[in-house]
Amino acid sequence: MQQSMAIQHLLDEFERLPGIGPKSAQRIVYWILNGSKESAESLANAIIDVKGMVHFCPVCFNYAEGDLCSICNDDRRDRSTICVVCEPKDITSIERTHEYNGLYHVLGGAISPMDGVAPDDLNITELIGRLSDDTVKEVIMATNPNVEGETTAIYIAKLIKPLGVKVTRLASGLPVGGDLEYADEITLGRAIEARREV
Amino acid sequence: MQQSMAIQHLLDEFERLPGIGPKSAQRIVYWILNGSKESAESLANAIIDVKGMVHFCPVCFNYAEGDLCSICNDDRRDRSTICVVCEPKDITSIERTHEYNGLYHVLGGAISPMDGVAPDDLNITELIGRLSDDTVKEVIMATNPNVEGETTAIYIAKLIKPLGVKVTRLASGLPVGGDLEYADEITLGRAIEARREV
Repeated sequence: MQQSMAIQHLLDEFERLPGIGPKSAQRIVYWILNGSKESAESLANAIIDVKGMVHFCPVCFNYAEGDLCSICNDDRRDRSTICVVCEPKDITSIERTHEYNGLYHVLGGAISPMDGVAPDDLNITELIGRLSDDTVKEVIMATNPNVEGETTAIYIAKLIKPLGVKVTRLASGLPVGGDLEYADEITLGRAIEARREV
Repeated sequence: MQQSMAIQHLLDEFERLPGIGPKSAQRIVYWILNGSKESAESLANAIIDVKGMVHFCPVCFNYAEGDLCSICNDDRRDRSTICVVCEPKDITSIERTHEYNGLYHVLGGAISPMDGVAPDDLNITELIGRLSDDTVKEVIMATNPNVEGETTAIYIAKLIKPLGVKVTRLASGLPVGGDLEYADEITLGRAIEARREV
């Protein structure tokens, strides 16, 4: 062991992070060692703050700092539409498109018998609760386009439809800017099935 | 701004790190949000500790936690050889080979008029000081094989040779496991020049 204990410990801590291998961890640790004490403290404090200040929004289960999350709290959002996603990070992806101005509902996962995730483990009751008055006209199922996501979307759609609320699903098809040659056969099959007149 | 302030701040902090882009930062931040408070605190404390506990070894300028660095402090190291490197991280690379058992000396950079780094900015005087008694028999110049590294190696070699200490340089040539086809012409040229009888 030629490495200092504190350096080795920090290397180990960074290597635990997703997408960080030994080489990246080393680069980051040497960057911290070369940088100012303030810069290191700023990073450390930001990590502590995020765990102390962030909790789940009691309405939509997005990450929130105040009582409600910034989206539920925003009067300019269209309250007649709820977009249902698996994880809070999916909200970030959808917000980045600037195509959606409604509310969200985070399930906290997808139904997956293989991983032991049953409908009761997800925030589905809370979603149904949000449809009790007549405010919401449409629920967009934006779960992932894989087996678990599809299962979850179908399961929830069956619960919602009797309430007279429209349920839609994100379109499947070819990625924009993609190449037919590189499309997998299931995606291409979906794109043919869902073809539209031009 | 849909993102919580604390999350956005942590995203910004991670994006400042070398090799971390917006996508990697997002992955790490959500990993921290999903993880335990202890896990986040452990990372934050390791960052604070490394800045508080690590300083430069007064002999070789490697990172150290005690009085001397772990290598200068190790009685099993061969004290007749000093390997001169630009940065402490180069020591890690050389230690990983398990081919070297001597001491080190960290210059703290390389001579580079373009970047305003003059010989006086490097720990060269301290290196010469270590050669004053007859303990050291060989100095290995392990600066980077680029213009700045070569310049630095030649500059220091000229200072050391009159002291009667042997000065050597890491060999340049084809990377092991490499392919002639992908070798750049300078490396290949060096390999031809330094060819050895088999």
